[in-house]
Amino acid sequence: MDPFDLVIRGGTVVTASELFHADLGIRDGRIAAIGEELPAGREELDAHGLLVLPGGVDSHCHIEQLSAAGLVNADTFETATASAALGGTTTVIPFVAQHVGTSLAAAAEDYHRRAERGAIVDYALHLILADPRPEILKEELPPLVRAGHASLKVFLTYDRLKIDDEQLLDVLEAARTHGLMVCVHAENHGMIRWMGRRLVERGFTAPRYHVPSHPRIGEVEGIHRAIACAALLDQPIMIFHVSTAEGAAVIHRARGEGRKVWGETCTQYLTLTSADLDRPGIEGAKWICSPPLREPADQEALWWALEVGTLQCVSSDHAPYRMDETGKLAKGPNPSFKEIANGIPGLELRLPVLFDAMVSRGRLGLCRFVELTATAPAKIYGLHPKKGTIAPGSDADLALWDAERVVTIEDAPRTDRAGYTPYGGRTVKGWPRHVLLRGRPIVRDGKLEGTPGQGRFLPRQGGRAALPTGRPAPEFDPAQNFGARLW
Amino acid sequence: MDPFDLVIRGGTVVTASELFHADLGIRDGRIAAIGEELPAGREELDAHGLLVLPGGVDSHCHIEQLSAAGLVNADTFETATASAALGGTTTVIPFVAQHVGTSLAAAAEDYHRRAERGAIVDYALHLILADPRPEILKEELPPLVRAGHASLKVFLTYDRLKIDDEQLLDVLEAARTHGLMVCVHAENHGMIRWMGRRLVERGFTAPRYHVPSHPRIGEVEGIHRAIACAALLDQPIMIFHVSTAEGAAVIHRARGEGRKVWGETCTQYLTLTSADLDRPGIEGAKWICSPPLREPADQEALWWALEVGTLQCVSSDHAPYRMDETGKLAKGPNPSFKEIANGIPGLELRLPVLFDAMVSRGRLGLCRFVELTATAPAKIYGLHPKKGTIAPGSDADLALWDAERVVTIEDAPRTDRAGYTPYGGRTVKGWPRHVLLRGRPIVRDGKLEGTPGQGRFLPRQGGRAALPTGRPAPEFDPAQNFGARLW
Amino acid sequence: MDPFDLVIRGGTVVTASELFHADLGIRDGRIAAIGEELPAGREELDAHGLLVLPGGVDSHCHIEQLSAAGLVNADTFETATASAALGGTTTVIPFVAQHVGTSLAAAAEDYHRRAERGAIVDYALHLILADPRPEILKEELPPLVRAGHASLKVFLTYDRLKIDDEQLLDVLEAARTHGLMVCVHAENHGMIRWMGRRLVERGFTAPRYHVPSHPRIGEVEGIHRAIACAALLDQPIMIFHVSTAEGAAVIHRARGEGRKVWGETCTQYLTLTSADLDRPGIEGAKWICSPPLREPADQEALWWALEVGTLQCVSSDHAPYRMDETGKLAKGPNPSFKEIANGIPGLELRLPVLFDAMVSRGRLGLCRFVELTATAPAKIYGLHPKKGTIAPGSDADLALWDAERVVTIEDAPRTDRAGYTPYGGRTVKGWPRHVLLRGRPIVRDGKLEGTPGQGRFLPRQGGRAALPTGRPAPEFDPAQNFGARLW
Amino acid sequence: MDPFDLVIRGGTVVTASELFHADLGIRDGRIAAIGEELPAGREELDAHGLLVLPGGVDSHCHIEQLSAAGLVNADTFETATASAALGGTTTVIPFVAQHVGTSLAAAAEDYHRRAERGAIVDYALHLILADPRPEILKEELPPLVRAGHASLKVFLTYDRLKIDDEQLLDVLEAARTHGLMVCVHAENHGMIRWMGRRLVERGFTAPRYHVPSHPRIGEVEGIHRAIACAALLDQPIMIFHVSTAEGAAVIHRARGEGRKVWGETCTQYLTLTSADLDRPGIEGAKWICSPPLREPADQEALWWALEVGTLQCVSSDHAPYRMDETGKLAKGPNPSFKEIANGIPGLELRLPVLFDAMVSRGRLGLCRFVELTATAPAKIYGLHPKKGTIAPGSDADLALWDAERVVTIEDAPRTDRAGYTPYGGRTVKGWPRHVLLRGRPIVRDGKLEGTPGQGRFLPRQGGRAALPTGRPAPEFDPAQNFGARLW
Repeated sequence: MDPFDLVIRGGTVVTASELFHADLGIRDGRIAAIGEELPAGREELDAHGLLVLPGGVDSHCHIEQLSAAGLVNADTFETATASAALGGTTTVIPFVAQHVGTSLAAAAEDYHRRAERGAIVDYALHLILADPRPEILKEELPPLVRAGHASLKVFLTYDRLKIDDEQLLDVLEAARTHGLMVCVHAENHGMIRWMGRRLVERGFTAPRYHVPSHPRIGEVEGIHRAIACAALLDQPIMIFHVSTAEGAAVIHRARGEGRKVWGETCTQYLTLTSADLDRPGIEGAKWICSPPLREPADQEALWWALEVGTLQCVSSDHAPYRMDETGKLAKGPNPSFKEIANGIPGLELRLPVLFDAMVSRGRLGLCRFVELTATAPAKIYGLHPKKGTIAPGSDADLALWDAERVVTIEDAPRTDRAGYTPYGGRTVKGWPRHVLLRGRPIVRDGKLEGTPGQGRFLPRQGGRAALPTGRPAPEFDPAQNFGARLW
Repeated sequence: MDPFDLVIRGGTVVTASELFHADLGIRDGRIAAIGEELPAGREELDAHGLLVLPGGVDSHCHIEQLSAAGLVNADTFETATASAALGGTTTVIPFVAQHVGTSLAAAAEDYHRRAERGAIVDYALHLILADPRPEILKEELPPLVRAGHASLKVFLTYDRLKIDDEQLLDVLEAARTHGLMVCVHAENHGMIRWMGRRLVERGFTAPRYHVPSHPRIGEVEGIHRAIACAALLDQPIMIFHVSTAEGAAVIHRARGEGRKVWGETCTQYLTLTSADLDRPGIEGAKWICSPPLREPADQEALWWALEVGTLQCVSSDHAPYRMDETGKLAKGPNPSFKEIANGIPGLELRLPVLFDAMVSRGRLGLCRFVELTATAPAKIYGLHPKKGTIAPGSDADLALWDAERVVTIEDAPRTDRAGYTPYGGRTVKGWPRHVLLRGRPIVRDGKLEGTPGQGRFLPRQGGRAALPTGRPAPEFDPAQNFGARLW
Repeated sequence: MDPFDLVIRGGTVVTASELFHADLGIRDGRIAAIGEELPAGREELDAHGLLVLPGGVDSHCHIEQLSAAGLVNADTFETATASAALGGTTTVIPFVAQHVGTSLAAAAEDYHRRAERGAIVDYALHLILADPRPEILKEELPPLVRAGHASLKVFLTYDRLKIDDEQLLDVLEAARTHGLMVCVHAENHGMIRWMGRRLVERGFTAPRYHVPSHPRIGEVEGIHRAIACAALLDQPIMIFHVSTAEGAAVIHRARGEGRKVWGETCTQYLTLTSADLDRPGIEGAKWICSPPLREPADQEALWWALEVGTLQCVSSDHAPYRMDETGKLAKGPNPSFKEIANGIPGLELRLPVLFDAMVSRGRLGLCRFVELTATAPAKIYGLHPKKGTIAPGSDADLALWDAERVVTIEDAPRTDRAGYTPYGGRTVKGWPRHVLLRGRPIVRDGKLEGTPGQGRFLPRQGGRAALPTGRPAPEFDPAQNFGARLW
Repeated sequence: MDPFDLVIRGGTVVTASELFHADLGIRDGRIAAIGEELPAGREELDAHGLLVLPGGVDSHCHIEQLSAAGLVNADTFETATASAALGGTTTVIPFVAQHVGTSLAAAAEDYHRRAERGAIVDYALHLILADPRPEILKEELPPLVRAGHASLKVFLTYDRLKIDDEQLLDVLEAARTHGLMVCVHAENHGMIRWMGRRLVERGFTAPRYHVPSHPRIGEVEGIHRAIACAALLDQPIMIFHVSTAEGAAVIHRARGEGRKVWGETCTQYLTLTSADLDRPGIEGAKWICSPPLREPADQEALWWALEVGTLQCVSSDHAPYRMDETGKLAKGPNPSFKEIANGIPGLELRLPVLFDAMVSRGRLGLCRFVELTATAPAKIYGLHPKKGTIAPGSDADLALWDAERVVTIEDAPRTDRAGYTPYGGRTVKGWPRHVLLRGRPIVRDGKLEGTPGQGRFLPRQGGRAALPTGRPAPEFDPAQNFGARLW
């Protein structure tokens, strides 16, 4: 047997289920052995005193995405994935964004081309369906599934992205046919428009009015409706970025009633609040994202929802816009909150901020940290066991983590191109030292070594991730299901 | 003191709260006295052995209504109110139906004219808003409110009637401003369209497929969403024609959570089931209504919901269509269920069928019968105490009821012009003998004596019925309510 | 026809369902006629400007009751019913208190004798079963039912009164056999003992620690358990004195699930809070009752529970103890909260305090006030239509109420013998002027005219009040009910 | 580096989180390495075509347990653990059973002695507290905790075992002090006694009447009460053997409300039903256990509760009694169901029956099987990472499983001494071939090689398992917690 290409020596390995002291032997970019006192490799990396974590999987981030309004978010695949790597994340799932009237296949091709050129970490792509007309679902989608796409995203709000309930059912049916996961931005569009209109009419235009313009009950309603539609077809769905206690409660109850629903929250909903928007002038715009930041009591509820398994993963929803005319201020220097691009950067700091809040402050254990930020998203989206874990045969994507390092995050531009961070001034304990992608360091001692184009597309197999259990979803037939209580 | 115009002698009087033996003295069309051994009146009506009930209030019936598709339902105000009178109902609340792009005021004028000419019983009118554009809400609605309209109706489904959530919020806000009740047909439009499309594509076109084409969970969703929107403004709403156990459960839970929501069900959901549609050929079309008839377990749940007060009234949702090219078969002799007009007749038999099912069979007591079919709708819609009860000062609208009379309902045309009854063949115990409107018999010994045009419009006062308690709804102000949990 | 004995002229009559202007004609102690301009009576009572309400029915009050510990509460039937009359209450339902090892029949005889001698208003009696051994249920109870007793009370807490779950099931079965209502003091005994012990051990002995010694969750548990036991036999129960939002929520949910459960709260839980106990020294003892006073948010929840019908009546739970060695200080001048008798006076001020809080402050309407304080308790406990309403044939028990009179309640002894009132210092709007029992004034212009012994026992018929609807409860048979989901 | 003592070559390793092909290197009884193509060991075990699973952890089984009535169940530690080993289970957690009036310490010593002598697999012990009087909790418990006991068990039913709510709170407080898990048999004692009495009185004595004698709602009540008591102290609890859909729903809701509650079900509730008791004569006694077997719909609900994480582990509740005068027929040859010992054997067949039902039939995946039957119980009860997983440093407790082997379970005595199996006649797919304890085969090719006394006691550390997250439970202080909503 050949020697290992690399041995990571002396670290504390953490998976979603286990924590143990062991060396890792890496060969051909994959984990080949895990054990005590492994034989020497061609190379060695000292991990004494470090945690050896699976590289993070950020299953919800917007990269180089063109909005229907023509706005591109601040990052390119290169800058975004550089920031991901520096934060310990080795797999991202950004989006292919179809717009109304356009081709999904063409959009996919476009994003593939850009990702291929720029990505420093590996990636899959969710397909945003803004216009699920029959030819898209019947003709364009099947080849994309065969090419390795296994998840769709739809919006129930945003003027140019939202689909109606009948379209949602068409999407869910297509997903069921192909065994795809459907991710949903679930807020009530009418409430958001109505509140926005009323607030602006009355002169409440400062950034902080973004919060009431997305009413809490609009999240409740959106989640409830998405689940109801999915239940009609018994199709699993993922509720993206749950922000309120009540929203999490809807998911909890639905799961108890047999609904196949997953839930995600994001770093910002666990660590920031609506108070962050309440700043002089336009400054609060930096904290405008949708759904908006909520209250301290919501943070508690979301932490508990993670604890009992109502929510299963924590992503960044990275969506960077600069505080200038290319981004937040595209509609002028003093926009109303309705005119400010929604989104905040978070790819890089997702893991450090969560590690601190979750592990260093004792909320949840190390294994749960790994599960929520790497293993669970990898499993839910069909990337596991290649990604999201440390096991023989899995890709050697690793974050070697210094759990004791204390860092005060500067209130300054970071690697991504947002030009600011919403976490500026926060002191966190725990920081990644080295990051490996398929066995090769892309970050060493906190310095980027990865190169654009090094990241690879991760084809996924439709039909695998349909149920938590991997059971195939039963065939849907309106003629046969008449008797069912559901109808 | 002048003698009474009429004394109703020796009956058993029933109100929503009381049951007692007493004579009624009537003067000027109103109840003047209730007591034992009242002095003789100018006229006397013997009520020994009869129940003396308030005339029924049917708060949900479609009369002479023009659909957006140009179809008029089978009845005129004359025929419909004649059938109402014969069944013991002395007040009806049909609709003014606005269509998209048209004037609400003009529609109101039109319906007023027709009602004035034909009505044999008294009436108020709900205003259907299919197009709540600003000029309607700001310019046309206020004069209508001043003219005595106090309730609106909106549809969340039907292609030409449905409003979206933002429009619903506009309507709710207008209702809140004027203190109006908002009645909602709450089913999920997308689910109905989607299921209908799928069923027809697969050849499931018989009338009975109408049932699964309106999924149960679509009612759950519609009710939940309507309540969520109303909660955003803290505006009371009435959920029309609840048909499922789950739908009633949504209302029950919402009431427990502080939502100001009322619920209604209809005779047919308590006494018919989906099995009634399962007949050879097109015959089942006679039982097509929306929401569709459901299952026996739903009947039990709806009875219980009435018992504990989750639902507060039972109407007919009278919507008669003939089984010919003017009605059910307008799209041809062999239509798919999607092409068949939705609606069944029920104004006349509402009270006899309910009396039998509710009182004669021992489900609920006499007082609850009166409450559910007369007093509660009168109170909720602002007609009480003029209508819906027997009390000094109230209109002498009375149904003298023979609780022992057993009638087998013929499977034949009745007074309305539907040409059939969905209750044919049913044997019921309890039947009205005499019916009085404002102290004058309109039905005597089961024969119609009322005349078209005798019925009067009942102006109502906006702002009165807004809360169960009569409390004024608090002022709504998006700027002031930021802190509220709801936002 | 003879003239009326008395005509009450010109008032505004209020019932649970109606409000109208009319005269009342009274003959032989009963309402004989209600109408406009009734002919003159032998006597006349001017009610212009007054509300004419049914006399209050206080369905939960402790009078001259001997505790197992030998303590008698402060009132006699004479003093207690005098205070009731002065407050507008004309019917009371105090208790026959059986103690462990003693005869229920003998206790009943004793209380009957004392009530007969002293009562100024009419009364029924709940039978407290502290020892439901077979001979009590099989031999003593049936003759008591035949003698007109139709309601039982049990305690789930208090060392000498509590029954265990098996005993509760025996009581529920006996109640089902005879068609009796079962009232339950539903708090978790173990939690109360455990908390009391822990608090006292740690030196937390001041009156205010009574509140945490009855944990909120102990009420939730007790109510849930009582409902579960009753559900096993499908036997209706009444939950006495609900004090918390969560407790009301348990009842609301249970009613939605088909449980036949009623709920009551008391004046003090709607108008006082735990802050009232927080006074220097032993003073807070005056506000010690069980369950304890709770928080402002609970008041809001309880008001809402009344509004939607989750709770149906408001009683006083009058249980007066003097602040001396005969009552609150029986265990010494400086007792721990565990040693202080539980209970506060409230018979007299129940209606004035509630009228103010409910009607004058606009929470609920006049009809609801009548329903909650008179009609509903009369119906639930089988006293209606004789009591609790104004209708031909009903007893002429009336409270003529001055809705405009503003009274500041003195912080001084009142008619009852508690020697203090927990409502001292409160200013209320609305006060009874005259009170009639069976057509004869017992209070005139606020002065007592009634005489001890004038009050009569109200025999009730078992088997009538079993269900809200008056439906007979179905036969219970463990052999037949095996298939039922409940088992 | 020394060679491995043993290499398990070529198998498919399964953990709660991962599934991969790898060799296992074992040294000193522990896993030393996991990897592809490990170097040769001193010994090799061929695992090609086999699954390599962590040995099962059966966290709820009664072994050689003396009942308060003097009845010993059929097994000794030797026979019970032999059967465990043959079924793939390498860790058991039976009980130390204290009886009323006896010493817990003495009981512990006794069970230790017997386990030491007989056990073939490793074991921890739950401490049953039937008499938690102060000296037990204050004096006897602390040394036992220091000696490695970390879990308590209490019964809410059974005449000689049940504790009341105040005692339960004492136990919960002690558990909180020491960081122990509290396991609860949660059924309502009064309901069981009452139903049993009624059934026997009416002559319903056959075994099948055991089912209704433990009403479903009694489980709901017991679980709700146990959770309420635990919530009072914010102390985690484990609900043992959930048998009904409603019981699981109570846990689901409680978890959503922030309660720290875990749940377990057992093989029999997932795979047998009440129909199994419905056999001629006394035969059904073989299926009498408590709670009783329930209905097919409950099985579905329990599977779903496992799927969404409401329940976390599946045990056997092994409690074997022979069908003779030493066991089921101790009260005579023809006992009523009340006289029949409660319990069925299940240690051996737990894993094969569950593997078939769960994995072979496609309900849940292999990883979930491992999690539910080994990893989760090990974690919850503080045995992980030593037990319950396959990871470097963990004990090499392994079950090498032939997933393709089809076995029809004979209706005949098995290794345990129950003399029968409730699973006789069932055909299952999947069977253990070899079983290793700390690296040494105790079963090879289906033949027992382990020896009595080989099993070791597993001391656990109190205070570790208190919360799902490992967070320390906050200090409990009745004086400080007054403001908390819970009180």
